[in-house]
Amino acid sequence: MAKGILGTCGEKQQVMLLLLIQIIVIVLMGTLMTYGPEARPVPRNRSISAYSPTNSWLPDDKKDDDSPPLYPMYQDVHVMIWIGFGFLMTFLRRYGQSAVGLTFLVGAILVQVAMLCEGVFNIGKNGKAPLSLKSLLSADVAVAAPLISMGALLGKTTYMQLIVMGIIELIVYTANKYIGENHFVVVDAGDSMYVHAFGAYFGLAVSFVFGMKEKPKEHSLEGSSYESDIFAMIGTVFLWLFWPSFNSAALKGDEQRRAIINTLLSIAASCVISFAVSAFVSKQSKFNMVHVQNSTLAGGVAIGTAAGMMCEPFGALAIGSAAGAISVLGYKYLTIFPGRIPGLGPNLTEINENYRLSLKPGPNRSAGQQAAYQLLALAVTIGVAIVSGLITGLILRMPICGSITEDQKFDDSVNWEFEDENAVHDISSASKDGNGRTAEQLSMGHI
Amino acid sequence: MAKGILGTCGEKQQVMLLLLIQIIVIVLMGTLMTYGPEARPVPRNRSISAYSPTNSWLPDDKKDDDSPPLYPMYQDVHVMIWIGFGFLMTFLRRYGQSAVGLTFLVGAILVQVAMLCEGVFNIGKNGKAPLSLKSLLSADVAVAAPLISMGALLGKTTYMQLIVMGIIELIVYTANKYIGENHFVVVDAGDSMYVHAFGAYFGLAVSFVFGMKEKPKEHSLEGSSYESDIFAMIGTVFLWLFWPSFNSAALKGDEQRRAIINTLLSIAASCVISFAVSAFVSKQSKFNMVHVQNSTLAGGVAIGTAAGMMCEPFGALAIGSAAGAISVLGYKYLTIFPGRIPGLGPNLTEINENYRLSLKPGPNRSAGQQAAYQLLALAVTIGVAIVSGLITGLILRMPICGSITEDQKFDDSVNWEFEDENAVHDISSASKDGNGRTAEQLSMGHI
Amino acid sequence: MAKGILGTCGEKQQVMLLLLIQIIVIVLMGTLMTYGPEARPVPRNRSISAYSPTNSWLPDDKKDDDSPPLYPMYQDVHVMIWIGFGFLMTFLRRYGQSAVGLTFLVGAILVQVAMLCEGVFNIGKNGKAPLSLKSLLSADVAVAAPLISMGALLGKTTYMQLIVMGIIELIVYTANKYIGENHFVVVDAGDSMYVHAFGAYFGLAVSFVFGMKEKPKEHSLEGSSYESDIFAMIGTVFLWLFWPSFNSAALKGDEQRRAIINTLLSIAASCVISFAVSAFVSKQSKFNMVHVQNSTLAGGVAIGTAAGMMCEPFGALAIGSAAGAISVLGYKYLTIFPGRIPGLGPNLTEINENYRLSLKPGPNRSAGQQAAYQLLALAVTIGVAIVSGLITGLILRMPICGSITEDQKFDDSVNWEFEDENAVHDISSASKDGNGRTAEQLSMGHI
Repeated sequence: MAKGILGTCGEKQQVMLLLLIQIIVIVLMGTLMTYGPEARPVPRNRSISAYSPTNSWLPDDKKDDDSPPLYPMYQDVHVMIWIGFGFLMTFLRRYGQSAVGLTFLVGAILVQVAMLCEGVFNIGKNGKAPLSLKSLLSADVAVAAPLISMGALLGKTTYMQLIVMGIIELIVYTANKYIGENHFVVVDAGDSMYVHAFGAYFGLAVSFVFGMKEKPKEHSLEGSSYESDIFAMIGTVFLWLFWPSFNSAALKGDEQRRAIINTLLSIAASCVISFAVSAFVSKQSKFNMVHVQNSTLAGGVAIGTAAGMMCEPFGALAIGSAAGAISVLGYKYLTIFPGRIPGLGPNLTEINENYRLSLKPGPNRSAGQQAAYQLLALAVTIGVAIVSGLITGLILRMPICGSITEDQKFDDSVNWEFEDENAVHDISSASKDGNGRTAEQLSMGHI
Repeated sequence: MAKGILGTCGEKQQVMLLLLIQIIVIVLMGTLMTYGPEARPVPRNRSISAYSPTNSWLPDDKKDDDSPPLYPMYQDVHVMIWIGFGFLMTFLRRYGQSAVGLTFLVGAILVQVAMLCEGVFNIGKNGKAPLSLKSLLSADVAVAAPLISMGALLGKTTYMQLIVMGIIELIVYTANKYIGENHFVVVDAGDSMYVHAFGAYFGLAVSFVFGMKEKPKEHSLEGSSYESDIFAMIGTVFLWLFWPSFNSAALKGDEQRRAIINTLLSIAASCVISFAVSAFVSKQSKFNMVHVQNSTLAGGVAIGTAAGMMCEPFGALAIGSAAGAISVLGYKYLTIFPGRIPGLGPNLTEINENYRLSLKPGPNRSAGQQAAYQLLALAVTIGVAIVSGLITGLILRMPICGSITEDQKFDDSVNWEFEDENAVHDISSASKDGNGRTAEQLSMGHI
Repeated sequence: MAKGILGTCGEKQQVMLLLLIQIIVIVLMGTLMTYGPEARPVPRNRSISAYSPTNSWLPDDKKDDDSPPLYPMYQDVHVMIWIGFGFLMTFLRRYGQSAVGLTFLVGAILVQVAMLCEGVFNIGKNGKAPLSLKSLLSADVAVAAPLISMGALLGKTTYMQLIVMGIIELIVYTANKYIGENHFVVVDAGDSMYVHAFGAYFGLAVSFVFGMKEKPKEHSLEGSSYESDIFAMIGTVFLWLFWPSFNSAALKGDEQRRAIINTLLSIAASCVISFAVSAFVSKQSKFNMVHVQNSTLAGGVAIGTAAGMMCEPFGALAIGSAAGAISVLGYKYLTIFPGRIPGLGPNLTEINENYRLSLKPGPNRSAGQQAAYQLLALAVTIGVAIVSGLITGLILRMPICGSITEDQKFDDSVNWEFEDENAVHDISSASKDGNGRTAEQLSMGHI
C-alpha cells in the first residue's frame, strides 16, 4: 500500500518549520521593506507635476508613455507561474493535487522570499528597501527558477525539501543575477540565462544528489493518465500564451514590441516543430505528450535573452524551430533529464547565445567583447547553478526536511488527507475517491 | 437511484419563470438604462478637450493618468467571478457540471439585475441611468455576494431557488451598500464588508432556514473525488491570482498600487499559513483540500477594506497570516459552515476592522469616530444580511421555485440531460458516462 | 480495437509535409515580412515627438489616448483562441488530448500563415510587409475561422487535413475580407460575417464532402463523458468572458466602450435564454450540455457586426436573447450541424443584419444603400465559403493528407503515443491509462 505509516514526529517538525519560516519572513519584511515612492501618498508640499508620478513604477531610464501598462503584463506572468507551472506538473496520474497544491504553497512562500532577496540589494537611505509593482514582477520571475528546478524532483521530495531548496536557490539566484548584471553588464531580457538555465541546472544537480543512493526503477505511479495529461495541457497552453508577456514585461517602447513579436513567432515555430519532430522520432509517427507539454515552450526560452533585438521575423522563427527540435531530441535520446523541465533541451541557451553575438554590443564594448562577456556570464551561471545545486542536494538530506520512501513517490496520499480513506467499500467512494479507487482496483485486479 | 421521477409540471413552471425574468429584465433595461456619456459619441459642437473624455469612465474625483486602465482589471474580476467561483464549487464528485453551469446561468442573469439595481440609484435628468465600464465592474463585484451565498447551499437547491435568492440578495445588497457609503460614509475598498461578510451571513441564514426541517445525514454524493478536487483548484488559483485586481480596481494612483501590493502580501501569507495550520491540526500532519481550496483566499478578504491603506508590508502579512489561521480553525472546529464559503472564517472582517481603526479618519471625523462608524456599518451589514437571509429562505420554499428531495442532493442528474442515460450496458458509456457509470458501479457494488 | 495497424508510410509523409510547411513559412516570412515602424528603433535624426510613437500601433485614423491599451485585449483574444476553442472541443470522451493538442498545433502554424496572408496585401515600398501588434491581433482573429470550421470535422480527420484546410481557408478568408472591406466598404466590428459565418459555412461544406461516401452511424466514442464535459466548460466560459474583448479590440474611444457594453449584455442574455430554451425543449425540463457549451456564446456572434453601434442596452439584450433561442432550436431540430460549431445557429448573422440596417449609413450612402451592401457582402461571404469549402473538401481527400477509417474516428490513440499501451494488465495502468482502461473495461463488460 502506498499509504505508509509515517512517524508523525517528522511531519509535525516540518509543519513547525513551515510556520517558523513564515514568521521569519514577516519579521524580516517588517525590518527591511516598505512601500516604494510610487506606492506612497504624494507629499502635500510638492506639486504632482514636480513629483512626476506618471509611469513612476518604471525605473527612471525606462519611462515611456507608449509602454503598455505594467500591471496587466504582471498578471500574465502571475498566471504563468501558478496556473502554468502548477498545472503543467499535474501530468502524473496520482500526483496532480500535489503538483498544483505544492506549486501554490511553494510559490506563495518563495514570492515573499524573492522580495526580501531583491530588497537586500536595494536598501535605501532610510534603511529600508522599496516595494513596488516592479518588485512584484521581479519576484514572480525569480520564483520561476525554483519551480523549474522542482520539475526535476516532482514526486520525489517532501514539501519542506522543496521549500528549503527554493530559499537557498533564490539566494544564490539573486547573487548570481546581481553579479551578471552589474559586473559582467550582461543583459537577459527574457531571463533565459538567469532563470531558465540556472533553474534547470540547479534542479538537475539536486536531483543527481537525490538519485545517488537509489537505482531508478519503474514505479507504478510514475506515468500519466488520460485525464492528467489534459490537466497538464492547461498549464502548457497558458505558459505558451503568456510567454510574450514574460519576455517583454521589463522592456519598453519599440524594444518591448519587438520582444512580443519575436517571442510569439519563436514559440509558434517551436510548437509546430516540436509536434513534427515528436512524430518523426516516433515508431508509429504519433505525437508524444511529454514533447507537446514541454518542448513546445522551448521557443520562449530560446529567444529569451535576445527577445528585444532586431533578429527579424525570420530569425525569431529560426531560433524557435531549432529550439523545438533540439528539445524533443533531448527528451528522446538523452536520459539526463530525471523529470520534465519545461521548455529546455540541452544547451538551448547556447543557441541564442551564438545567434545574438553579432547583434548588440554592450556599453563601450565591441560586439566580440560583449559576446565574450555574455558567454562568460552564461558559463558562470551554469557553474554556480551546478555547484550550489549539489550542495543544496546534500542539505536537503538533513532530517529536518524529512524524506519520502520509494513507495511514497509520486503519490498524493503522502501530502493530502483523503476524507473517505476508511470507507473503501462504500459504493460512492469506491467509484471515484482517490485512495478508495486504488484499493478497489487492487482487489479487482487480483480476482 | 438518484434520478427521481419528477412531476414535469414544476420544472416547466421554473423554465417559464426563467424566461419571464429575462424578459422583465430586458423591459426594465429598456425603460431605465442608456449608455453613459463616455460610451456616447462626442457631440460635434463641443470640442473634445472641453468634453475631456480622457479617463472619463472613472468618477470625476478619481481621474488620474497614472492609473492602470480599468478594462484589464475588470477582465481579471470577470475571470474571478465565472472561472473562479464556478470551478471552486466543482469539488463535489457528482455536481461539477452544475457547479460550473449554475454559476454561469446565475451569474449571467444576476449581472443584469445588478446593473438595474445600481441604475435605480443613479437615474439622471433624462430619466435614465448611465451604463459604463464602471457599471460593468460594479455589477461583477455585486454578483460575488450571491455566489458566496450559493457556496452555503451548493447541491441543495433548484436553480430557480438560487436565482430568486440572488435577485432578492442584490436588492438588499444595493440598499445596504448605499446606506453604508452615503449615510455612514464608510469605505470598503475590497468590498470585504458589503460583499463578503454580507454574502456569507446571508447564505448562512438562508441555509439555516433550509436545514430546519431535515436533520443532516451523510449523503453518498456529498464528498469530493480525486479529479473534482483538481478541477476545484482551477477556481482557487484564479481567485487567488486576481484578488489584487478585485481589491484595487476601483482605486487610483498610489492608493491603488498599495492595494495591489498589500493584497498580494496578505493573500500569499494566508496561503502559506493555511497550509501550515491545515497540516498542524491534521492527525497525520497532512494537508486538507477543503482548507487549501478556501482558507488560502482568506487574506484577500481580510485585507479588503484596508487594502489601500498604509498598513506597511509587515501589516499586510500579519493580517493575511491571522486570516488564514482563523479560517482553517473555523472550518476544522466550528460546524456552523453548512457548505464551503470561500475565504471566510468567523468574524474575519473584524480583524481588519480592528487593525484599521487607527489608520484613516473619515471626513471631519477623528480616527475613533470613523472607527465607530465602520463598526456600526459592519454590524448593520451583518444584521441586515441575517434578517433578509432568513426571510429569503422562507420565500424560497414557495412552490414556484421548486425544491429537491434528499435523494436528489448533490446530483448533477437533477439539472442535466445525460445523453446515454439509457445505454448503461454499452461498453463505452459504461466506462465513462455520468449516469451509466453510477448504475454500473451500483451493480458492481452489489455483486 | 480502435488502434488500427496503420501503414507508417502515410504517416511519415504527413510528418515530412508538416516540416516542409513550417520551412516554407519561415522562408516566406524572411522574404516578405519585417518589423513595422512602431517595432523599430526611432531614427536618431528624428525627434521622438515628430515621430509621434504614442499609440503608433493603432492605425493613424484611430489614435486616441483614451483607448485601453491593445496588448491586454490581444491577450484576451489569444486566450480565447487556444484555451477557449481548444478546451471547448474536449467534450468528446476519448478525443480530449487531440482537441487541445490539435488546436495547439493547427493554431500555431495558422497564426504564421495568417500573418503572411495579411502581409501580401500590405507590402510597402521596401518590398516587405510590416509586422506589428495589430498584425498579431488580426492573425489571431483570422485563425478563429478555421478553428470554427474544425468544430464541424472534429475527430473525423487527420491533423494534416486540418492544416491543409486551414491554409486554404485563410487564403480565401483574406481575399474575401479584403474585397468586403475595400470594394463593398462594409464594416464588421466583431467579425461575425468574415470570421464566424465564413468559418461555419466553410466547415459545413467541407464536412458535406467528407460525409458523402459514408452514411453516418452511431460511433461508440462519439459522446461526451462526465469529466470531458467539465473540461469543455473551461473553453466555453473563457470564450464567454473575453468575447467583449474580441468584439472591441479593433475599435476605439466611445465606439469601443459601446462594443464592450453591448457584447456583455448580448452574451449575458444569450446565456440565460440558452439555458431556458434548452430546458424548455427538454422532455424532463433539464439542461443540455451541448446547448450550454455552445448556444450561450451566440450573443457574442450575433452582436458582432453591430457591436459598436448605438443599439442601446435594450437592443443588445434583445439581439442576444434571439440569438440564444435560435441557436438552441437549431441544435435541437435541425441536423444540419455535423459537429458542434460554437455559438452559431442558422442564419444568426441575419439577425444583426436586419437589426442594424437602419443604424449606420456608410460613407456617401443612405442607410438603405449601406444595408444593401452589407447584405451583399454577407451573401458573397457565405457563397464564397460554401464553394471554396466544397473544393477544399475534395482537395483534402488527396492521399498526401492521409485519412482515417471509421474505426479510428473520435479516438485519441490515432494521434498520440500512449506510453503504457502494452501494460494493460498492470494494476495502475489499468486503473487510469487511456488505452489500458478501454481494454480492461472491454474484458469486464464481457464477463
